[in-house]
Amino acid sequence: LRRIFRMIGRYLNQNNSPDTLVLNYQKPGDLKKKIDLTINEEGMDNEWLIKVLRKYLRYSVRTTHRNFSNQLFSAFTFPSFIGEIIATLTNTTMATYEAAPLGTLIEQEIIDKMNRLIGFKTENNPADGIMVPGGSYANLMGLLCARYKAMPETKDKGINGIQFRVFVSDQAHYSFKKMMNVTGLGTESLTEIPSDENGRMKTDLLEKAIKQSLEKGEKPFFIGATAGTTVYGSFDPFREIAAIAKKYNLWLHIDGAWGGTLLLYKNKKKQKLLDGIELADSFTWDAHKMMGVPLYASFFLSKHDGLMLKCNAVQGADYLFHSTENTSLDTGPKSLQCGRHVDALKVWLAWKFYGDRGYSNMINDLYSKVNYLKKLITQNPWFELIADPQYFNVCFRIVHPKNSIDMNEMNMEIRDRLFRSGSYFTNYSVSKNGIVFFRLIVNPNSTKSDYRDFMNKLINTTESILKEKYLPDQSAHIFNTVEDQ
Amino acid sequence: LRRIFRMIGRYLNQNNSPDTLVLNYQKPGDLKKKIDLTINEEGMDNEWLIKVLRKYLRYSVRTTHRNFSNQLFSAFTFPSFIGEIIATLTNTTMATYEAAPLGTLIEQEIIDKMNRLIGFKTENNPADGIMVPGGSYANLMGLLCARYKAMPETKDKGINGIQFRVFVSDQAHYSFKKMMNVTGLGTESLTEIPSDENGRMKTDLLEKAIKQSLEKGEKPFFIGATAGTTVYGSFDPFREIAAIAKKYNLWLHIDGAWGGTLLLYKNKKKQKLLDGIELADSFTWDAHKMMGVPLYASFFLSKHDGLMLKCNAVQGADYLFHSTENTSLDTGPKSLQCGRHVDALKVWLAWKFYGDRGYSNMINDLYSKVNYLKKLITQNPWFELIADPQYFNVCFRIVHPKNSIDMNEMNMEIRDRLFRSGSYFTNYSVSKNGIVFFRLIVNPNSTKSDYRDFMNKLINTTESILKEKYLPDQSAHIFNTVEDQ
Repeated sequence: LRRIFRMIGRYLNQNNSPDTLVLNYQKPGDLKKKIDLTINEEGMDNEWLIKVLRKYLRYSVRTTHRNFSNQLFSAFTFPSFIGEIIATLTNTTMATYEAAPLGTLIEQEIIDKMNRLIGFKTENNPADGIMVPGGSYANLMGLLCARYKAMPETKDKGINGIQFRVFVSDQAHYSFKKMMNVTGLGTESLTEIPSDENGRMKTDLLEKAIKQSLEKGEKPFFIGATAGTTVYGSFDPFREIAAIAKKYNLWLHIDGAWGGTLLLYKNKKKQKLLDGIELADSFTWDAHKMMGVPLYASFFLSKHDGLMLKCNAVQGADYLFHSTENTSLDTGPKSLQCGRHVDALKVWLAWKFYGDRGYSNMINDLYSKVNYLKKLITQNPWFELIADPQYFNVCFRIVHPKNSIDMNEMNMEIRDRLFRSGSYFTNYSVSKNGIVFFRLIVNPNSTKSDYRDFMNKLINTTESILKEKYLPDQSAHIFNTVEDQ
Repeated sequence: LRRIFRMIGRYLNQNNSPDTLVLNYQKPGDLKKKIDLTINEEGMDNEWLIKVLRKYLRYSVRTTHRNFSNQLFSAFTFPSFIGEIIATLTNTTMATYEAAPLGTLIEQEIIDKMNRLIGFKTENNPADGIMVPGGSYANLMGLLCARYKAMPETKDKGINGIQFRVFVSDQAHYSFKKMMNVTGLGTESLTEIPSDENGRMKTDLLEKAIKQSLEKGEKPFFIGATAGTTVYGSFDPFREIAAIAKKYNLWLHIDGAWGGTLLLYKNKKKQKLLDGIELADSFTWDAHKMMGVPLYASFFLSKHDGLMLKCNAVQGADYLFHSTENTSLDTGPKSLQCGRHVDALKVWLAWKFYGDRGYSNMINDLYSKVNYLKKLITQNPWFELIADPQYFNVCFRIVHPKNSIDMNEMNMEIRDRLFRSGSYFTNYSVSKNGIVFFRLIVNPNSTKSDYRDFMNKLINTTESILKEKYLPDQSAHIFNTVEDQ
């Protein structure tokens, strides 16, 4: 055990060294040769365990590394890492208070806090919520609660014959589409409302679509707005959308999986991005994204206390849910899960440890990096900003004046070379008009100089490709490198 | 960090001491007084972290304790505990090979192995599978795949107007009913087929119900059979059910969340319980139950390679799923989740470490404890066996010849007293005819003498209650204690 704990300490230290690779990329076939994956009749010993764990760490992506800017998460915090270890150590399930007394109370505490921040919980409204394994399931819960509210009889009778309709923006998370299939509504019952150049849902088109649906005799019941879209990090105009939802009596769900964390920021200007969220009916918030908590830490939050229970509770688990003095605390009946991991502990430990202020400072720091990156991009003629960053997504691409060079291919090749070298793990995306661009998610562990180095690395790589493929005769510097600022 | 690791070591050692409580029961209000749950503006320090973790451990249920026989899981194994720590340390998501190269390959290896054990994967059939956060979601995946197979157009068009019908036994897990609501089929479209005295689905009644449904013009498409029911641990007659499924062209899903582990047992007699499972279309298997792996470790396994992908993949996540040489390995598109925790590592480490043989020996040991318990129960006139155990569930109750004593109340009170004393965490259940009984899940950590002590503790507690409430004059021993064997 001691050797393993040393291994963990070493791994965390290595993240800070510039020589450490973010990933040691191997093709699947090569990786299989390096580790014998076959599970055999006979078991292995402790020495094997140590050796294989070392290999696992070597060939895994270091999501906590400073040069990891890929997914909507990166660094995690120490208290939350410990929280996950302790939750695993006690390994209980959240179905009943009996089996998870502290887990239950801690989850309730966080949900109350989040609901107060959103504005769902007020003196007169207790609000509701539950943790689920991922934002997709939180969005599913929103759909289910909305459908139940619109037509409670669907729970028992099914959705027979009713043509429901759901609205999200064309920048919304793809889980909404998946969940249209899951809930039996069908993907074609989802209308994607176009977004403006900043990735925000166009509310005039939303209202138009609702009217059209009503004219067709359909049953529109759900709007899925987004606080922090996956690609651009944009925030829909919630107050306007809420007014439309109210006018047509639709459920407004806000997918704040990515952007919910902004509620912890004490900056009024930025808080405007979240203006009107208290008017929604439900909200998704992933603490495993920017709150530095390991996966899963997703919350489904709802203004409607008790609705989730009515929607999801069924008979037939008397062996599990007994009538006791604590029955009202049992979260199992309102959940879609039976066994449920204690994800609340790691969130609570991190939040208690850093306090609201700690997170606000972290967000402030992230924004200052975003601004620094934006400056680097706009000041250098070889970079082009794709969208003005609202949140921690920075979308830009490399450009070159020579028309014959396919900049889509170029940007993808640069990304691929960096990825395979193991030095940077970043992502790319494609815009509506087919432009391929870098999509950087700002990492709490990275420093401004890391980003400067990254931009120069981009320039060097571009130069290499230009020389190899397009401009072999060119000998001088083609790009200006980014200066220290 | 070192202090926390020492804390973990101490916690695990304490489980072996008879003086350690399984739980330190506190009412919610009292517990809140012991730990300040409020998350504040200002953060806390390392000393607080250590202190609060100690408290968390003190007031949590010790599911790894020898006297924990409550849920369908208990002890976990060391390699899997370490596996979860390492998975958390690297904290990546399973959506793409790119982000989780080893996780992806390891998951595939386990799924292949399980599919071979079930009989889904053969020389001519590659089979399919994915890990999901819990057996309920695995059962949901079964329902979705079956619906897609029966009528692929539901994915886009929804289930408009079609009266689907689903069959499970009255002992099946309640998640089926929950998922009827989720999938928009409605809970009333679920038919619960009565079971026999051993908790096995009555196949003649199943066939009758299918015929009736067809006569009504419905679309029956799914049978959910169970390998190891929650209460009695019974196994449905799969070969007979499969014949019916084939005859009427229905999808057969087997919920082996609890009983799947029996596939690792090298005992032919017991393997008969699983006879015919290779004829099913899909299978649920929770490694976090009897395989000693912390939650979650659920598998959805399917005979139909590629069907899950067709059923669940949607457009709209180009930013995440790129076309690369490894695209075919990306598990995200077939999953309902976007971010997915690397649950595969802990399962793989434990299985590699113990090998098939290690698990077979563990199951053998569990069965010998089941038989020992059965002997104690049947030899003592004050115990009554409720059902002949097929698996690791032992259902029995305390009886007393005096008619005026309400034995339901008595059994519940005994359980409650043991629970509140913190010395034993066991569960109870209610049979069709209203009988309340103990439902013990045999624990790999417990020894035969632990069970002997438990039975004597039951007797002592019963005596106390009898004296206090029903037979205050009785001074002599009312029960025979259980003898050492």
